Amino acid sequence: MIITLRKDAPQSEIDSLINQFEKEGLQVNIIHGDNFNVFGLVGDTAKIDDRRIKANPWVENVNRIAAPYKLVNRMFHPNDSIVDVGGIKVGGDNPIVMIGGPCSVEGKEEIINIAKAVKEAGGSMLRGGAYKPRTSPYAFQGLGYEGIMDLVEAREITGLPIVSELMSADKIDEFIEHVDLVQIGARNMQNFDLLKAVGKINKPILLKRGLSATIEEWIMSAEYIMASGNPNVILCERGIRTFENYTRNTLDLAVIPIIKEKTHLPIIIDPSHATGDWKLVEASSLGAIAAGADGLLIEVHDNPECAWSDGAQSLKPEKFKCLVEKAKKVAKAVGREIYES
Amino acid sequence: MIITLRKDAPQSEIDSLINQFEKEGLQVNIIHGDNFNVFGLVGDTAKIDDRRIKANPWVENVNRIAAPYKLVNRMFHPNDSIVDVGGIKVGGDNPIVMIGGPCSVEGKEEIINIAKAVKEAGGSMLRGGAYKPRTSPYAFQGLGYEGIMDLVEAREITGLPIVSELMSADKIDEFIEHVDLVQIGARNMQNFDLLKAVGKINKPILLKRGLSATIEEWIMSAEYIMASGNPNVILCERGIRTFENYTRNTLDLAVIPIIKEKTHLPIIIDPSHATGDWKLVEASSLGAIAAGADGLLIEVHDNPECAWSDGAQSLKPEKFKCLVEKAKKVAKAVGREIYES
Amino acid sequence: MIITLRKDAPQSEIDSLINQFEKEGLQVNIIHGDNFNVFGLVGDTAKIDDRRIKANPWVENVNRIAAPYKLVNRMFHPNDSIVDVGGIKVGGDNPIVMIGGPCSVEGKEEIINIAKAVKEAGGSMLRGGAYKPRTSPYAFQGLGYEGIMDLVEAREITGLPIVSELMSADKIDEFIEHVDLVQIGARNMQNFDLLKAVGKINKPILLKRGLSATIEEWIMSAEYIMASGNPNVILCERGIRTFENYTRNTLDLAVIPIIKEKTHLPIIIDPSHATGDWKLVEASSLGAIAAGADGLLIEVHDNPECAWSDGAQSLKPEKFKCLVEKAKKVAKAVGREIYES
Amino acid sequence: MIITLRKDAPQSEIDSLINQFEKEGLQVNIIHGDNFNVFGLVGDTAKIDDRRIKANPWVENVNRIAAPYKLVNRMFHPNDSIVDVGGIKVGGDNPIVMIGGPCSVEGKEEIINIAKAVKEAGGSMLRGGAYKPRTSPYAFQGLGYEGIMDLVEAREITGLPIVSELMSADKIDEFIEHVDLVQIGARNMQNFDLLKAVGKINKPILLKRGLSATIEEWIMSAEYIMASGNPNVILCERGIRTFENYTRNTLDLAVIPIIKEKTHLPIIIDPSHATGDWKLVEASSLGAIAAGADGLLIEVHDNPECAWSDGAQSLKPEKFKCLVEKAKKVAKAVGREIYES
Repeated sequence: MIITLRKDAPQSEIDSLINQFEKEGLQVNIIHGDNFNVFGLVGDTAKIDDRRIKANPWVENVNRIAAPYKLVNRMFHPNDSIVDVGGIKVGGDNPIVMIGGPCSVEGKEEIINIAKAVKEAGGSMLRGGAYKPRTSPYAFQGLGYEGIMDLVEAREITGLPIVSELMSADKIDEFIEHVDLVQIGARNMQNFDLLKAVGKINKPILLKRGLSATIEEWIMSAEYIMASGNPNVILCERGIRTFENYTRNTLDLAVIPIIKEKTHLPIIIDPSHATGDWKLVEASSLGAIAAGADGLLIEVHDNPECAWSDGAQSLKPEKFKCLVEKAKKVAKAVGREIYES
Repeated sequence: MIITLRKDAPQSEIDSLINQFEKEGLQVNIIHGDNFNVFGLVGDTAKIDDRRIKANPWVENVNRIAAPYKLVNRMFHPNDSIVDVGGIKVGGDNPIVMIGGPCSVEGKEEIINIAKAVKEAGGSMLRGGAYKPRTSPYAFQGLGYEGIMDLVEAREITGLPIVSELMSADKIDEFIEHVDLVQIGARNMQNFDLLKAVGKINKPILLKRGLSATIEEWIMSAEYIMASGNPNVILCERGIRTFENYTRNTLDLAVIPIIKEKTHLPIIIDPSHATGDWKLVEASSLGAIAAGADGLLIEVHDNPECAWSDGAQSLKPEKFKCLVEKAKKVAKAVGREIYES
Repeated sequence: MIITLRKDAPQSEIDSLINQFEKEGLQVNIIHGDNFNVFGLVGDTAKIDDRRIKANPWVENVNRIAAPYKLVNRMFHPNDSIVDVGGIKVGGDNPIVMIGGPCSVEGKEEIINIAKAVKEAGGSMLRGGAYKPRTSPYAFQGLGYEGIMDLVEAREITGLPIVSELMSADKIDEFIEHVDLVQIGARNMQNFDLLKAVGKINKPILLKRGLSATIEEWIMSAEYIMASGNPNVILCERGIRTFENYTRNTLDLAVIPIIKEKTHLPIIIDPSHATGDWKLVEASSLGAIAAGADGLLIEVHDNPECAWSDGAQSLKPEKFKCLVEKAKKVAKAVGREIYES
Repeated sequence: MIITLRKDAPQSEIDSLINQFEKEGLQVNIIHGDNFNVFGLVGDTAKIDDRRIKANPWVENVNRIAAPYKLVNRMFHPNDSIVDVGGIKVGGDNPIVMIGGPCSVEGKEEIINIAKAVKEAGGSMLRGGAYKPRTSPYAFQGLGYEGIMDLVEAREITGLPIVSELMSADKIDEFIEHVDLVQIGARNMQNFDLLKAVGKINKPILLKRGLSATIEEWIMSAEYIMASGNPNVILCERGIRTFENYTRNTLDLAVIPIIKEKTHLPIIIDPSHATGDWKLVEASSLGAIAAGADGLLIEVHDNPECAWSDGAQSLKPEKFKCLVEKAKKVAKAVGREIYES
């Protein structure tokens, strides 16, 4: 950690700071510059709160050298983590998973039909929301427990592992019992109580990036889950909020090589929420695979115009099938393959 | 609601859409343009999901005319809402409240000392976090229940109503019993389960704007609380996330006249989180008052360099006192006054 | 164009508005809603200034239905435009071009060496800045005319067409004479005088997207060039500014299918400026090709640590060669190929 | 400057880096950390290109300690700069200037009428665009030289100094001869050739912040002008681009104390472009004055609905007059006054 002090800081202040850092077991190196003095702290600085130091009026700036995360840090864990989701291995050199399904579960018959279509098209897991975070209190809020049970039935028929979003810790037992991959949604990425709760369970977690979360904040939320005891975290980019209005969000594919460099966790991409427009899903999906994604999370609905939520970004099953075919070619071109059940 | 259709949409598709809207009780007006046909829907369109309509490949665009919120909408509730916080009225022409206190409660003695200093300086309420949302799992997470009890004791001594953040619905009884103004933090602005939970209680809610929430999303979160039954909502702007790095966030003061135009709710400003730098707090605070804020939420700490969180943005009590004095003058200049206990 | 009027607008105001629009040759359709009245204007609304209408205090909102651009609009020009750059055809089904070279030309020998390496690696054009837009007045500002002459010599030796940035209209003759593809940089995307100037020449233009330009603004800048008479425009995405700090900019690959849907112009991607980090260039490049890009603009330098500008984002020639090889495979997977000279 | 090296960097690489920095006259201090080695460079690092150093694959990060600007830096020029505009002193403790006028000059009679109204309302300078940067090539582009002459006539009649935007260096003689305060618009903030050109003239420059310029980039553009020889620079905040759609831009008032801390230049605020909505101008203006602005730039039009550009954000003269009256009170509350001619 590098601390920049104003040149006119009194010696007593400097001594007091050095004293304080040394008490915390850090070694302090001082560099005397022309306009500033600089302290370099060596040791475990993760516990130091840089904002507390900045409160000192003699301090001009504080720069962190070491990353604030440890358990997810590739530096201390060089091998790729592989996460097992209902028997399918995600990450590392494993085949890329194609996760398809509707934004919301809308009924047993509907989800079974879509599940069959997803499987037939080459999808390897089934997604579907039973508890839905909706901007408006007047919008459809999901079927709740009934929706989870519908997903379970769809899994029994198709064999596809199921992915669904957990919005609140009080449903956690339901998800432990029934869901294969527990999604934490973008709006809850910094719901720290929920992160701690899923950190204590034994199920893989799909952690979506927040709407305007920095990559570091996103990684720190993964660190929360791992620090609570659950190492099975998959990261999911779903677009970030920018000034651009032609798309719902801006898909940030550079996160793929970044996540692979900074962490050892698998990363999958959700082009449906990222773009908000089914016409943009195919190009974004192929781009994601070429850039190294470990999986795709794609909205598929057999009748998007009648979907109860997010129809605008859903592919019809035949388009999804077509996408899987193209994805196979692109995956092969970059030395990988698409998971086939 | 205005729906733009491609000119080559087949008549059968047009008829089917009209049919669908009329079934929902809406009146459909068609305008035939040169390159598009436009449907104008009249009636209660709040229940229509515009993304479902956009899923139709013949639909080019959907524009909402009427605001999606009702209960908080100034159009249907022209008078200012006044929210009573521990006996102090907030909003309308009532005096502006100055809420001061530390980011985190750090102990009984510490919070009592700050509370006395806040009161002595002219503050009218005491803020302090007992449950803290922290980006890092290794950072101080708050004193929890003990912190709430410390706040209660500080209130007993000073008479200042207390404001504290609720992070999880399982602590709601504790907050009902002890806290005067229940804060929903920026990171939980779209934790819809938590919004519904505080919508069912009988305490005023301070709803912070999310880090990258649009004004409309923020208003919709207030609508969630009101739709669940609790009309006592105060909005709080705390800066939005932008590309700018010299400040922690970008304070958006234009929200003050906008919130007053679109809604009937009180609005207060948090310049401490917005700027993240104590040197910027005074100018931002005076700007907020001149722009019409109903209150300010300011971090005050008697020893910011030793604060356990967010010291960088805390004012010392003497600076807070000085700010209150200046605030009185600016308030007077715009025809208002600062609340004095 | 859809204009929303407050319900309490006086009839005289309504009549005056109708009168005004009819005078401009537009047909006015009125829809009477519950809370608003809506005017639908049919005819050539591109000349209507929506901000002028919004100045009317009775007007609540103005929504544009038709796109404000015409010449670049795919709707009125369904076939892909093909742009010829020094004999190489860009756009449509033509092979993807790989443009390589240094950020700045640093000397004759240096640029010739890099040009040879680019060609040897499979690149089809040579980029190099002679006039450099630099944030700091103290940074290297480019070799100017000498740099252009060095590029010309590198072209003579390798046969690669040359791409360079024009910063000011007073150098336009120099660029007409010597440069094959005239780049308008991100910082000048809305330098409208410069756009008009290059709209009058007979050379292809590479129009970079501004740092925070919406897609519509970017398209409108292309419209400026075409409206001035030059139809040979290639668009270039180079990342947009967001809150994310791990990358220099955020690369927005969804623009590829959007540009292809809304316009008939070729689109190429600059992953070097978009990410600012050579370690992220390969993944981003392959993603861009899979998503449908017509070309890539990549910084290549034989000694990035000694480059006079933007070394951080430059690939060494061997890495560029490796990228071209991978790009061929991905291009083939999506039914295209890489241009080979 | 602080350079972080990977721990596995070979000694030869380290030696070569040290050698390179010492050749540039810098003193190198090394701190050996647990996971990284850190170089602290002391000396004039402004000329070092941090991106060149980052190109070295052993370098993890580069952090600048000293600000990259010098001439505008408060550290080396502690006193406020005062800029004289047609006899009115701007900055320091001088009275706050209220600059009013239309977005575009629309004719001699019109501008004279508005000028009289601005003066009568208490305005101290007249603004008006003769050369207009418009997003659409089909929008009104300004009256050009005729508009400048109309402004000159309005100045002769009212005595108000005139402010107008220069878009291109080829009109610079016209502006030297006729205009009192030469505006560089937001879209040209990084048109470096134009900055250098106005750096060579003897007229005060009003430098608007770019749509998404960081404060540091904005200051660096001021440094360009000063480094070219012209010390008479006034900065103007006009809102930055964010995801928020209820306003045209987001007004960032925290820049006022920041600019006053980092630089010695005057700062004025343009609430009209910042908000894009006349209903938000008054609150934003009073906020700006309370936060310490040295002036306001406000669009005033006697018939906004008929304005040829940006009517939506223009105040009628009577509203402007009313604003000036309120501004006087707020200015007084913060110990300043409004300039009166």
